[in-house]
Amino acid sequence: MSDDLNDHGDNPILDTEPTLGDMDPAEFRRAGHQLVDWISRYLENPEQYPVLSRVQPGDCRDALPTTAPVSGEGWDEILADVNQLIVPGLTHWNHPGFFAYFAISGSGPGILAEFLSAAFNAQGMLWRTSPVITELEEVALTWLRRLLGLPDVFEGVIYDTASIATLHALAAAREAGAPNVRERGIAGRSDITPLRVYCSEHAHSSVDKAVITLGLGHTGLQRIEVDSEFKMRPDLLAAAIKSDRESGLTPVAVVATVGTTAVTSVDPVPAIADICIRERLWLHVDAAYAGPAAMVPGWEDTLLGCDRADSFVVNPHKWLFTPFDLSAFYCRHMDQLRQTFALTPDYLQSLESGPVRNLMDTGVQLGRRFRALKLWMVLRHFGADGIRRRLAEHMRLAQLFSGWIDTSDQFERLAPVPFSVVCFRAAPANLLDDPDALDELNARLLDSVNATGDVFLSHTQLAGRFALRLAIGHIRTTEKHVAQAWHLLQRQLTVVTET
Amino acid sequence: MSDDLNDHGDNPILDTEPTLGDMDPAEFRRAGHQLVDWISRYLENPEQYPVLSRVQPGDCRDALPTTAPVSGEGWDEILADVNQLIVPGLTHWNHPGFFAYFAISGSGPGILAEFLSAAFNAQGMLWRTSPVITELEEVALTWLRRLLGLPDVFEGVIYDTASIATLHALAAAREAGAPNVRERGIAGRSDITPLRVYCSEHAHSSVDKAVITLGLGHTGLQRIEVDSEFKMRPDLLAAAIKSDRESGLTPVAVVATVGTTAVTSVDPVPAIADICIRERLWLHVDAAYAGPAAMVPGWEDTLLGCDRADSFVVNPHKWLFTPFDLSAFYCRHMDQLRQTFALTPDYLQSLESGPVRNLMDTGVQLGRRFRALKLWMVLRHFGADGIRRRLAEHMRLAQLFSGWIDTSDQFERLAPVPFSVVCFRAAPANLLDDPDALDELNARLLDSVNATGDVFLSHTQLAGRFALRLAIGHIRTTEKHVAQAWHLLQRQLTVVTET
Repeated sequence: MSDDLNDHGDNPILDTEPTLGDMDPAEFRRAGHQLVDWISRYLENPEQYPVLSRVQPGDCRDALPTTAPVSGEGWDEILADVNQLIVPGLTHWNHPGFFAYFAISGSGPGILAEFLSAAFNAQGMLWRTSPVITELEEVALTWLRRLLGLPDVFEGVIYDTASIATLHALAAAREAGAPNVRERGIAGRSDITPLRVYCSEHAHSSVDKAVITLGLGHTGLQRIEVDSEFKMRPDLLAAAIKSDRESGLTPVAVVATVGTTAVTSVDPVPAIADICIRERLWLHVDAAYAGPAAMVPGWEDTLLGCDRADSFVVNPHKWLFTPFDLSAFYCRHMDQLRQTFALTPDYLQSLESGPVRNLMDTGVQLGRRFRALKLWMVLRHFGADGIRRRLAEHMRLAQLFSGWIDTSDQFERLAPVPFSVVCFRAAPANLLDDPDALDELNARLLDSVNATGDVFLSHTQLAGRFALRLAIGHIRTTEKHVAQAWHLLQRQLTVVTET
Repeated sequence: MSDDLNDHGDNPILDTEPTLGDMDPAEFRRAGHQLVDWISRYLENPEQYPVLSRVQPGDCRDALPTTAPVSGEGWDEILADVNQLIVPGLTHWNHPGFFAYFAISGSGPGILAEFLSAAFNAQGMLWRTSPVITELEEVALTWLRRLLGLPDVFEGVIYDTASIATLHALAAAREAGAPNVRERGIAGRSDITPLRVYCSEHAHSSVDKAVITLGLGHTGLQRIEVDSEFKMRPDLLAAAIKSDRESGLTPVAVVATVGTTAVTSVDPVPAIADICIRERLWLHVDAAYAGPAAMVPGWEDTLLGCDRADSFVVNPHKWLFTPFDLSAFYCRHMDQLRQTFALTPDYLQSLESGPVRNLMDTGVQLGRRFRALKLWMVLRHFGADGIRRRLAEHMRLAQLFSGWIDTSDQFERLAPVPFSVVCFRAAPANLLDDPDALDELNARLLDSVNATGDVFLSHTQLAGRFALRLAIGHIRTTEKHVAQAWHLLQRQLTVVTET
């Protein structure tokens, strides 16, 4: 029968090997069990590897063939390459000495959840394409919102990254701030003047990317100066809005940050919210990193004023032990966001009798992974108190390290330490009046400690000067690792000052 | 020491339970092995479940607590809920009777790769944050590009979805088509007239979402009529561009589709490329679903003309056995895309001596999962011929089903079947002159076959009429399952016509 119907005629490759279908189940089981043991050993001792990969550019690429194999290969062969090629090319985010950027980490329950989610391979674009994806997302985001102490006016949705969350927030703000943008756009319209978004000098680059993407242009973003503690100055924000209105521009949104990327400063959200409400501007709060701190006794005020925001983002993949990627976006006008993005082509019309929520309506991406599973499993495994204890411990360790810096005559702290990140630099007495020499010394010190393979710190610029950053947030990082970092910094400072 | 340094004073929760850190390693191993067996059993017999979930809206949500547990729970308790709450709420994309939308499936090697990727939890924003993420992405995308027969002028990058890929393509097109959009935006500029993008009536809704996001407005998208085989008419495209230019609008891009969502038609890319080159418009090809067919002997012409496109997207998570999400985007002017999006804040400055590629420069998202691993493992496990055989078999099965439809006097085919999707409807002789009754009959037939739990088909509108869609693409779907679907359709047609 098939010969008659196949327009494309006989197909030689169909004759050579009749076995189609997935990986042999016995092989999957064997490979799976092997992988559980492999991963378990890896996670028990990531310190066997240098934190920062030592490969040179091109090494990984050049070690691999330039074309796919014609015939399939066995799992053992693939796993051997994982050991020989993949692992050396990794910078080990699981290493307890990873103190760079934000020291994110996954966790056992999150990893197992991702395994299960990949096996289900269910796609949550519509409620019906897996009801539990939509509904567990609602449950997990409600749990998280309550832990953060935010009111239930906020509806949540999971995106991949805070960059996408902020893009969506500002898209909704653009729609709210200028008439009928969804339909008519903003190009070539004489009734729309250039739109303006405000954030602090220390806000994340995702705000820049969002205004560029949305067609506001990079000049559409006005960065407001910070005070001595790196917090946005509300007086200057109000002045900038006033001045822009007088120049005929159209302010649409302010992005406040709770936990800026470089120094984790917290913008004065209550004062900014006052301004936004008065000026009818969309207030989006980027609490991607520091949001979870609000769960911890003593840090409840972290999100003060955020209950008055229009939208809010926090990243469980940063400081909530959830494997990358999972960004939780909350919005008090989710219908406005849906009005910006929802459209249902014929092939996706649903036939449910009652109203259901379809995740595809809340943004650019049609397809949605089952990401809620990992957040839900992480919260259940550790429990709220288990999470709180770990976050509190990270903040204790940051204070500990910060204290060592403060009592040292070789180092100085460069910013307050509200959460788990310390910005500092080596500042030996003989170089204090030579800023360029200090920059150069600290750059060499950073290279030197990172070259040990035992720690990985990153850096930034503060007031135009090279600053070292030690970020704590990894689930396996203990006081021992922080002490080791401090020991290495002191030791390598001696080495680099002597050479 | 810690007491002195912790500004926030004593913290009662730190005293109650000294154990911090990740899930106990022994528990992780036990849970992991248990999960391997669970997943293995699940994948061996997804037919034990109804394809389409039978829960009612709210069922999953209401079965769960409204707050996170205070204390952690054991793995067994969590896994019990997976069985009792999660699995019934899933629509089983792994079921071989899943014929809806595009019948995507993951595969054993892809699932194992995701497990490993979640364990590494490495984030590829910069080359140095895991060199192998950047370089394995290059390797896997080169393998795929060569399998597709595309020239090496295309540089590739992995995104989450084709929606995001198309957004980036059109952002680069916007930048190319209007001066200095990145910097100055498009709002309130008298030197820019409304921008125009073109696609066929049958192009994916992601094109609409992209023009809305980019500020072009929904009216900035001009949908071009299709011919009787649902392919974009190049003569009408050329006419629309001419007419828009005469009206003072600014055409910037055309999106051609290879494998449209409803009927999998292929736009005449060579003729469209001629027009784009002549008119200096960006040509983006959306081959998200059908691209992989180009690997199969007999289907090499699938991507004819795409070598002249500016950008191109194909989704390995659709028809290449790679777990969702992984979208492969290729661009011949990736530097232009980088010019649109790249910006490096102080805290992400790299210190490499030589030039390296940083994935964060190619788009909105800063963070990047290690997605290349699954594509690489899938291609290695099955080999190019193994993939080809499976794709060829899916197309054979579609032809087989299509033949049954064609020889039936109760059904009719509604579109050509170039790949693995068949659009058809029940069309009993007595209703042929009553289109509304036919629509109603087919809607009831669809509900009726889906209610059996053995198959899940979706629907669309063709020429304003209700059409059924049977999409083959699942790695576990065999001739037996397609025959069963055909049997069910015939049987249920009898049932619904008798009631």
